[in-house]
Amino acid sequence: MFRNTRTVRIEWSDCDPAGIVFYPRYFEMFDVSTTVLIERALGMIKFDYLKTYDFLGHPLVETRARFRIPTRFGDTVAIETAVTALGRSSFTIEHRLLKDGNLAVEGFETRVWVVRHPNDAARMAAQPIPAAVVARLTQG
Amino acid sequence: MFRNTRTVRIEWSDCDPAGIVFYPRYFEMFDVSTTVLIERALGMIKFDYLKTYDFLGHPLVETRARFRIPTRFGDTVAIETAVTALGRSSFTIEHRLLKDGNLAVEGFETRVWVVRHPNDAARMAAQPIPAAVVARLTQG
Amino acid sequence: MFRNTRTVRIEWSDCDPAGIVFYPRYFEMFDVSTTVLIERALGMIKFDYLKTYDFLGHPLVETRARFRIPTRFGDTVAIETAVTALGRSSFTIEHRLLKDGNLAVEGFETRVWVVRHPNDAARMAAQPIPAAVVARLTQG
Amino acid sequence: MFRNTRTVRIEWSDCDPAGIVFYPRYFEMFDVSTTVLIERALGMIKFDYLKTYDFLGHPLVETRARFRIPTRFGDTVAIETAVTALGRSSFTIEHRLLKDGNLAVEGFETRVWVVRHPNDAARMAAQPIPAAVVARLTQG
Repeated sequence: MFRNTRTVRIEWSDCDPAGIVFYPRYFEMFDVSTTVLIERALGMIKFDYLKTYDFLGHPLVETRARFRIPTRFGDTVAIETAVTALGRSSFTIEHRLLKDGNLAVEGFETRVWVVRHPNDAARMAAQPIPAAVVARLTQG
Repeated sequence: MFRNTRTVRIEWSDCDPAGIVFYPRYFEMFDVSTTVLIERALGMIKFDYLKTYDFLGHPLVETRARFRIPTRFGDTVAIETAVTALGRSSFTIEHRLLKDGNLAVEGFETRVWVVRHPNDAARMAAQPIPAAVVARLTQG
Repeated sequence: MFRNTRTVRIEWSDCDPAGIVFYPRYFEMFDVSTTVLIERALGMIKFDYLKTYDFLGHPLVETRARFRIPTRFGDTVAIETAVTALGRSSFTIEHRLLKDGNLAVEGFETRVWVVRHPNDAARMAAQPIPAAVVARLTQG
Repeated sequence: MFRNTRTVRIEWSDCDPAGIVFYPRYFEMFDVSTTVLIERALGMIKFDYLKTYDFLGHPLVETRARFRIPTRFGDTVAIETAVTALGRSSFTIEHRLLKDGNLAVEGFETRVWVVRHPNDAARMAAQPIPAAVVARLTQG
């Protein structure tokens, strides 16, 4: 399966009055990591892959995270992201955020490939992930 | 167990280019809901309960969410929040975000009661939840 | 000119490691206040007024703020918002954020009424504010 | 005066339902840019310079921004940041955000060097910027 690692610096603005990361910011970081993983797998930025494959996005249907070690502003962390399973119209992603080589936060996502609902522009509908995308995301 | 419901309006700034809530914003809403629940149980705002009980906060050790129905700017939703279990130094919370009476998002949190680590101000340490707090959070 | 006041509670998630509001959050609050002002003037939510008047939004071309008194989590503040000038396709807004009746933050915005550019969907173009909207925003 | 340039990628999460950056995110980017500039001038991260110079931070007393060209997710921009004036306890910063070499957003900040108020831990007090810091920020 496709995997990717990127480096992120924790900023003052990510932290709360206790001086540690306000946990929803981890989900923001993970969302960027998933985007970057797909971008690298497909060889184009999100703005272009949404157009190329003519879909609305890959929203989450479920997510889970475990927070093991707090991080604070000034910390530079690595986020390892990997596709862990690919279904017909959904896929799962795992993130491992490492601080000084130690697992600080784990994230798990189930996402679905969606288009505008054919009969109602205000709604979304799941759609099979294109074969070309599956091929790229399953390569090691 | 103590429970609480509050009303939240989804704002333009909560939404992404697909026009729906960017999911980390749900965790921000849930964090406020947990704070409001504790505030109402204890009868004082967070700024005061942190001082009164001399602790650093109640960070998450784990969280999980299921996203069933998208919400978009202008939606007014209800968030029902309840304590579901109380341990020695940890507790669990459930959130149910309802749109037009339908369950749109579910959130589950495990939090821990922490103080500054006695030997290292840069670290946190779990500590038993005070009996007075347990008493308030377990009242129906 | 139309004016509006709303009450906002400063949350833990709005604050930084110094324990005070991280200043970009004030702009988020002001953006909501401007939306609420226009919603009340027009009698419909933003989702509907964008459709009714068939436009893309009212992005800022310039903004300015003065921070006089810090606010922190648990503070309940009032934000007074008023239209201060209306041009052909732009308008100005002022916000006064009050803490215990004292002016804590002032915000000034110049916004423009925009539609999709007729020749390039990726661009925006200014357009005259509809007469019906001008009429509503200029009423006292 | 000290100056610095950094590269930032605009993310999906920075953008609103109109598909362009939600403007408070620019202030978040500028805040990071100011931090990075001071870090590079002083040769240490913010976590350390707050300790080394024993102060609370450098909050804004005023800011202003002009938005000339919209940016959207996938855009990679450069942010040029420079100290423009140094007073006894305050200093001014300018940011120029460039997209494809064109000035997209300008930001102007007046910040003040603050410590905990000696007689009231809940308040802040301005204090002269240390001579060593002035020396570093004024070097070209």
